[in-house]
Amino acid sequence: MTLTFGGPWPEPSALVGFAQNRLVRDTENRDGESLGKALADPDTRFHLFAGAKALVRKDDRPTATFTLSQCEAFSPEFGSAVLLGSDAHGPRIAALIGLEGEAPEPFKLYDFRSLLYSSAVTDSEAGAMAQAGSLLHWHAMNRFCGKCGTATTPTNGGCRRDCACGSQMFPRTDPVVIMLAVRGDKCVLGRGPHFPPGWFSTLAGFVEPGETIEDAVRRETREESGIQIGKVRYHASQPWPFPHSLMIGCLCEALSDAIRFDGGELEDCRWFSRADVQQMLREEHPNGLKCPPSKAIASFLIRAWAQA
Amino acid sequence: MTLTFGGPWPEPSALVGFAQNRLVRDTENRDGESLGKALADPDTRFHLFAGAKALVRKDDRPTATFTLSQCEAFSPEFGSAVLLGSDAHGPRIAALIGLEGEAPEPFKLYDFRSLLYSSAVTDSEAGAMAQAGSLLHWHAMNRFCGKCGTATTPTNGGCRRDCACGSQMFPRTDPVVIMLAVRGDKCVLGRGPHFPPGWFSTLAGFVEPGETIEDAVRRETREESGIQIGKVRYHASQPWPFPHSLMIGCLCEALSDAIRFDGGELEDCRWFSRADVQQMLREEHPNGLKCPPSKAIASFLIRAWAQA
Repeated sequence: MTLTFGGPWPEPSALVGFAQNRLVRDTENRDGESLGKALADPDTRFHLFAGAKALVRKDDRPTATFTLSQCEAFSPEFGSAVLLGSDAHGPRIAALIGLEGEAPEPFKLYDFRSLLYSSAVTDSEAGAMAQAGSLLHWHAMNRFCGKCGTATTPTNGGCRRDCACGSQMFPRTDPVVIMLAVRGDKCVLGRGPHFPPGWFSTLAGFVEPGETIEDAVRRETREESGIQIGKVRYHASQPWPFPHSLMIGCLCEALSDAIRFDGGELEDCRWFSRADVQQMLREEHPNGLKCPPSKAIASFLIRAWAQA
Repeated sequence: MTLTFGGPWPEPSALVGFAQNRLVRDTENRDGESLGKALADPDTRFHLFAGAKALVRKDDRPTATFTLSQCEAFSPEFGSAVLLGSDAHGPRIAALIGLEGEAPEPFKLYDFRSLLYSSAVTDSEAGAMAQAGSLLHWHAMNRFCGKCGTATTPTNGGCRRDCACGSQMFPRTDPVVIMLAVRGDKCVLGRGPHFPPGWFSTLAGFVEPGETIEDAVRRETREESGIQIGKVRYHASQPWPFPHSLMIGCLCEALSDAIRFDGGELEDCRWFSRADVQQMLREEHPNGLKCPPSKAIASFLIRAWAQA
């Protein structure tokens, strides 16, 4: 029998927010000169960040992708810049700027959630900027060698840091499971204490060392809601720059009904009927309950079930 | 329409090596006393490691799970011990020992590959020991704060390290895609320079920051073999303690035929017919070619296609 690749195309992972990064990274062919060469290339374009906030120009030609001369007003710190990759127009670099407080008109600073949900940038800019945010945070958190405490040096355009002790450090990506537990015509959604009013979303948690994706889905669902899970089905993944996660989205089969949550991580957790969830997705729920916005992988998981 | 959870049960991820860890971690309910309490508990059992090698007793009662009194001959370093979790028998701790060279009879040191392929320990021991190996390596590589260079302190039974600067560090797990590219009746396998003679296996590589699983599969396959990939289908995952990866196993659809590899990462890369692969799996290939052992996720991916 020949294996078939049935599923939808484009795949769900190609449609979630932050997934449209089109840069070619070419990580394996970089060397100690890669960043310097890109900085000297007139075709290079830049994304600029003040901490974890991205600079966007908001006039009649909105953009988050700047030329070198457009960068200069913001005093970019090129010593800690990161080469993201390149596209048909040339290399792309991410750099920190020293800006404190608000950006001057017509510029504006966006945190990554606003970037995703506001459509202030194109989908491909959002994807490249998620890569940038993850890498810049990782560099800031790895200025010293964890093994010996010595200061480390970035190399290969920022895709490695080296220590004099011989240690080589590579960027970190944290796998996180995010899952919709379903049983017949109902599903489990929870509310974190910092959610916007009325929001309910899927449960989620970090994969722990020595654990499969499926076991992480079962453990996290049990820990957060008390519900036992049987089968797990992978649905889609999403880069998530908070600060450098890989969301692994699954649908899973609840085997029990009783919900138990401790109030620390969640302030509410309940079963919702499919009819309720369909109203929430349409923003027509009589109690004002809502699901996360459409670019969040949680929304993809909820729709995959509610609209099946 | 009701979503169905068709697939096989147990799921493929439940059958791969290192996946049978049955310990309850209870990470969220730990505190600074958790390790001390477990060390004082007479029901606690221990896994012992000399660097990245695990201690196994090889007499008529083989085991890799020791009581406190059985540990003492090996001078365990309990200051850097890690609480893995607990099972019905009590807590489980992993600790380093100072052993250099060979272990005294009837003990023997096993690296993780030998542990997996030799059946020297039970599947649940192998799973707990993979968790242990990942955590012990992470602690050794994070003795100092990457942000400020100060020495860090383990807490919560080793599931966190704290720095005086306020940084909290959590164990690292590296997502890796491992994939079998197929086209009709043929699939792509490669040979790393350090493989045993005759071995061919699936391609693999780290997920990069800001990338979906599917994009990582396409990028890695293109980088390593030159082959273009279309659809990607998740199959199974595997904890992989080398030193702390999560293997994300996929089958994927090749859209091109020409193979191009650079000889650095791979010393060979070819198309194999299904008939060839079936001979390799049975260890009956006329040229002595072989696939990886049955507990490796590569073998699961290859069999999922060759025996479909």
